[in-house]
Amino acid sequence: MDNEVGTEIAVSTANAIYIRGKDLVQDLMGKIDFTSMIFFHLRGRFPTDGERSVLDASLVAVMEHGLTPSSITARLIYSSSPDAMQAAVAAGLLGAGSNFLGVMEGFARILQDGAAAIRAGETTAEKFARTTIEGYLEAGKSVPGFGHHIHRPDDPRTPKLLEIASKAGVSGVHADLLTVFSETMDELKGRHVTVNATGAVAAVLSDIGFSWRIVRGFSLIGRSAGLVGHIAEEQERPLGRVLWAIAEENVPYLGEVPGDD
Amino acid sequence: MDNEVGTEIAVSTANAIYIRGKDLVQDLMGKIDFTSMIFFHLRGRFPTDGERSVLDASLVAVMEHGLTPSSITARLIYSSSPDAMQAAVAAGLLGAGSNFLGVMEGFARILQDGAAAIRAGETTAEKFARTTIEGYLEAGKSVPGFGHHIHRPDDPRTPKLLEIASKAGVSGVHADLLTVFSETMDELKGRHVTVNATGAVAAVLSDIGFSWRIVRGFSLIGRSAGLVGHIAEEQERPLGRVLWAIAEENVPYLGEVPGDD
Amino acid sequence: MDNEVGTEIAVSTANAIYIRGKDLVQDLMGKIDFTSMIFFHLRGRFPTDGERSVLDASLVAVMEHGLTPSSITARLIYSSSPDAMQAAVAAGLLGAGSNFLGVMEGFARILQDGAAAIRAGETTAEKFARTTIEGYLEAGKSVPGFGHHIHRPDDPRTPKLLEIASKAGVSGVHADLLTVFSETMDELKGRHVTVNATGAVAAVLSDIGFSWRIVRGFSLIGRSAGLVGHIAEEQERPLGRVLWAIAEENVPYLGEVPGDD
Amino acid sequence: MDNEVGTEIAVSTANAIYIRGKDLVQDLMGKIDFTSMIFFHLRGRFPTDGERSVLDASLVAVMEHGLTPSSITARLIYSSSPDAMQAAVAAGLLGAGSNFLGVMEGFARILQDGAAAIRAGETTAEKFARTTIEGYLEAGKSVPGFGHHIHRPDDPRTPKLLEIASKAGVSGVHADLLTVFSETMDELKGRHVTVNATGAVAAVLSDIGFSWRIVRGFSLIGRSAGLVGHIAEEQERPLGRVLWAIAEENVPYLGEVPGDD
Repeated sequence: MDNEVGTEIAVSTANAIYIRGKDLVQDLMGKIDFTSMIFFHLRGRFPTDGERSVLDASLVAVMEHGLTPSSITARLIYSSSPDAMQAAVAAGLLGAGSNFLGVMEGFARILQDGAAAIRAGETTAEKFARTTIEGYLEAGKSVPGFGHHIHRPDDPRTPKLLEIASKAGVSGVHADLLTVFSETMDELKGRHVTVNATGAVAAVLSDIGFSWRIVRGFSLIGRSAGLVGHIAEEQERPLGRVLWAIAEENVPYLGEVPGDD
Repeated sequence: MDNEVGTEIAVSTANAIYIRGKDLVQDLMGKIDFTSMIFFHLRGRFPTDGERSVLDASLVAVMEHGLTPSSITARLIYSSSPDAMQAAVAAGLLGAGSNFLGVMEGFARILQDGAAAIRAGETTAEKFARTTIEGYLEAGKSVPGFGHHIHRPDDPRTPKLLEIASKAGVSGVHADLLTVFSETMDELKGRHVTVNATGAVAAVLSDIGFSWRIVRGFSLIGRSAGLVGHIAEEQERPLGRVLWAIAEENVPYLGEVPGDD
Repeated sequence: MDNEVGTEIAVSTANAIYIRGKDLVQDLMGKIDFTSMIFFHLRGRFPTDGERSVLDASLVAVMEHGLTPSSITARLIYSSSPDAMQAAVAAGLLGAGSNFLGVMEGFARILQDGAAAIRAGETTAEKFARTTIEGYLEAGKSVPGFGHHIHRPDDPRTPKLLEIASKAGVSGVHADLLTVFSETMDELKGRHVTVNATGAVAAVLSDIGFSWRIVRGFSLIGRSAGLVGHIAEEQERPLGRVLWAIAEENVPYLGEVPGDD
Repeated sequence: MDNEVGTEIAVSTANAIYIRGKDLVQDLMGKIDFTSMIFFHLRGRFPTDGERSVLDASLVAVMEHGLTPSSITARLIYSSSPDAMQAAVAAGLLGAGSNFLGVMEGFARILQDGAAAIRAGETTAEKFARTTIEGYLEAGKSVPGFGHHIHRPDDPRTPKLLEIASKAGVSGVHADLLTVFSETMDELKGRHVTVNATGAVAAVLSDIGFSWRIVRGFSLIGRSAGLVGHIAEEQERPLGRVLWAIAEENVPYLGEVPGDD
C-alpha cells in the first residue's frame, strides 16, 4: 500500500454513501448480513461461505461470558449514568484488555510467524512449537492460548471452532500448527493442558487470512454485543447497586479511625 | 419480571457454557449467525427470517460513516496507544453520543409512545404526529429523526430500510407512524424535510419488538465494527499523526505571548 | 467572546511553552501550586488566597469516597489491563456520571439562575427557593443537592465547605441561597433533609465565579486523583479479582440449563 | 504488606468520612491543599515542603500541551455529547497512552533499577547508563526520556524541574543518574539529544519516593485538569465541529465510486 494520505473506507454525497467502492444502499443493505459486512469492511471483498461460517462462529464464541470484569463494569457504569449507554459499553470494552485480548493477539502472532517460517523452510511445525513453548516455560511465563481457570481439561469451544473451520473447508496451516502446539505442550508439561477459546479463535481467524494485528478487534465487536445484552438485563433486573453493596459488605476497611485506642 | 437478584444471561461449568438456557457449543456455535445470536441474547429466542433481515440491514446501515468525530477519535487514540486497541474502540464509542444516539432513542420512544396511545384509542396517528411535531417546533427544538447535514432532500438509507422491512413482512405500526410523521412535518414546515437513517432504524427496530430503551445499543454494536475497520486501515495507512498535524496547522493560537509589544 | 476559530490555551515553540499568555517555565512552574494552575487554566488569571482556599477544599472534598462504582470499576479494569493505567482511570471517570455529577451541575445552575433573578429584582431568595422546590416535589423528583444514603442528618462536608468559604471571605449570594433552600426544604418536608457535599460544592464554586456549565469538571479532576490512589493500592493489595469472585458468588444464574427436567 | 482482603483507603459513617486514618472534615479539608492531599492519598503521610514543591511543579508541567491527540479527542467527544462531560475527559485520557505515559513509566523504572543496582555496589552510574543506552541503540529503539519533536536542543521544562527539586533540597540519586544518562547519550550519539520533560518528571518523582509503577498516574491527574480547561474553552469557542470539518476537507477518499469509468 502506498503512503498517500487518505482513506479508502467511505465517502458520502447528497444521495449516496460509498463504502470501499460499493454503494451502501444499492449493493450492501438487504444484500449481505452483518458478519459479511464486517468482513467486507476489513478486507474489501465479500467472504466465501466458509469464511463467513468461521467468522460467525468466532463472534458467537467470544460474545458472552457471564459476569466478568467487563460486564460487571458495564453494569456499574450504566447504573451511574443510565442516560449515556455508550459510556457503559465503552467502559466494559476497556475491561477486555491485555490479559484476555493481548493473549489472542499474541498467539495469533506466534502462529502466523511460525507458519511463515515453516513455509520458508526455516523450521518445521514440531521444532517451532517446541522452541517457542520452551522459551515461555524457561522464562516462567504462561503460553498464550493455553490454560483456563474454569474449563478443564478442555474448553468446549476449542474443538467446536476447529470442527466448524474444518467442515467449512477453510482449516489450514494455523489450525494444524495449533494441534502441534497442543501435543508438544502436553509432552513438555507431562499432562494435558487446556487449549482455550482464545487460542482456537486465533488459529481459525488466521486461517481465513486475518493479520494477528487486527484479531483482537473481533473480540471487541463480539463483546460489544454481549455488553448491550447485559445493559438490556440491567434495565429489567438491575444489578449495579447490588454489585456495589456486595463490594462494600465484603471488603473491610483496614485503615485506622482517629480516636481509636 | 420479578425482582430476584441474579442474572439469566450466562453461567459456565468445567465443560459447558450456558447462555440464556442454551448450550453455547451444542446449540449456538455453528448453528446460528452473529446477528441471530445478538437477537437471541437480547430477546431469549431466535429471530424469524424477517426479523433477522431487518436487524442485519440496520446494523449494516449504521456501521460506517467515514471520518466522523467517532472514527477520528479512534484513530487518534490508536496512534497514541497502538498496544491497547480496546482504548481506541472505547474512545470512538464515546463519540457515538447524545447528538446521534440520543436522537435514535428519543424518536423510538416517540413512536412507541404514539403506537401505544393509538392502540389504546386515545389518539390517531395524524393527531399524535401533529401534536408532537408542533410541540418541538414551538419549543424551537429539532424533531428527532428528521434533518441531515449532507443527505438532502432524502437520506437514501431511509426508504431502503422501510422497503426491506416491508418485503420481509415485519413492517408495522411504527413504520406507518413514521410515514405520517414525515407527511405532517412537510406540511407544517411547508417544505420537504429529510427523514434520516436514525429515524428509519428507530421505526423498523420498534416494529420487530425492541424497546426504545435498548435501540441505541444496536448503533454501538454496528459502530464498534466500523471502528475496528478504521483501526485496520490505520495500521496500513496511518492518519492519526496527520489528523493531529492538520489540527495544529488550521487552529491558530489566539492568546498572547509574553514580551509581545 | 468572538467566534474566531482558534484556541487561547497554549502554543509551543522550540524553546518555550506559552499557556494563556504566560511562559510555562518562567512564569508558572515553581511559582504557583497545582490548584492555582487549574484556576489559571480555566479563568486566565491567578486566584486570590480566598478563591484558592475554596478550590482546594472542594477538590479535597470530592476526591475520595472509598469503594464506589467509580473506584470498583477502576480496580476491575486495572486488573484486566495493568499495562494501560489510563484505561482504568478513564473507565472510573465514566462512573462519575449523571447520578452524581449531573446533580452538582444541576444545582449550580439553579443557584446561578436564582442569583441572577434575585439580582434583577424578579424574585426573592425565599420565593425562588419555594417555587423551585415545590416544582421538584410536585413532579415527584428529588431536589439536586439534597439527601444522602449514608450521611444523615447531615453531610459533615457541607458546613465545613461553607465555613471555609466564609472564613476566606469569598462566601456570597449562592451560599446564602443554599441556606434559604435548606430552610425551605425542611419546612416543606416537615423534617430536616441533608444538604449533601454536592450541593455545598455547587454553592461555593458558584461564589468564586465558576459557571454551572464547568463545575462537574472539578469533580472529574478530584476523582482522577482518587482513582490513581485506588490503583496504587491495587498494585500492593489487589482487589480486582476479589471483586470479580464476590460478584460471581453472590449473583446466581437464574436461567435454565438444557436437559433440566 | 500483608495479603488480607480489604482497603486502607476510606470508610464512611453517618457523620464522618475517614481517609487513610484521618477525618476528612476535621483533619484534611481546609488544612491541606489539593497537592498535599494527592500525596497523602498515595503515601499515607503529608509531604514535606520540598516534596510538595516538586509534586506541584510536576503536575503544572504535564497539565497542558495545547492541541494534542488527547485534547483534540476531548473536544470532539464533548461536541458529540455535551451532556456527558465525563465521557470527553475519559476519552481524552485514553489518548495519554503508551507513546507518552509508557515512556515516563519506562524511564522511571530504568532510573530506579539503576539506583538500586548502584546502591548494591553492582555497577556505577556511568556503566549503568552506558550499558542501558547501548542496549536500546543496538535494538534500534528510542531511549525513553530522550528526544522531542518540537523542543530542540532542549526541553525548557527539564532544567526547570531539576532546579526546583535541587532548590527544594529533594534532588537525589535519580536526578544525578539522569544527568549521567544525558552526558552518556550525547557522547554515544556524537551530538546533543534533548532530555524531555517526561524524563525529568520521572527523575524528580523518583527522588521524592514514588515507585515507577505509579508515576504515570500523575500525568493522568495533571492531564485531567488540562482537558477540563479545553472543555471550558469548547463551551465558549467551539472547535469540535471545526476539527471534524478540517479532517473531512484534508483527508480525501481514495476508494472507488461505483459506476466510475
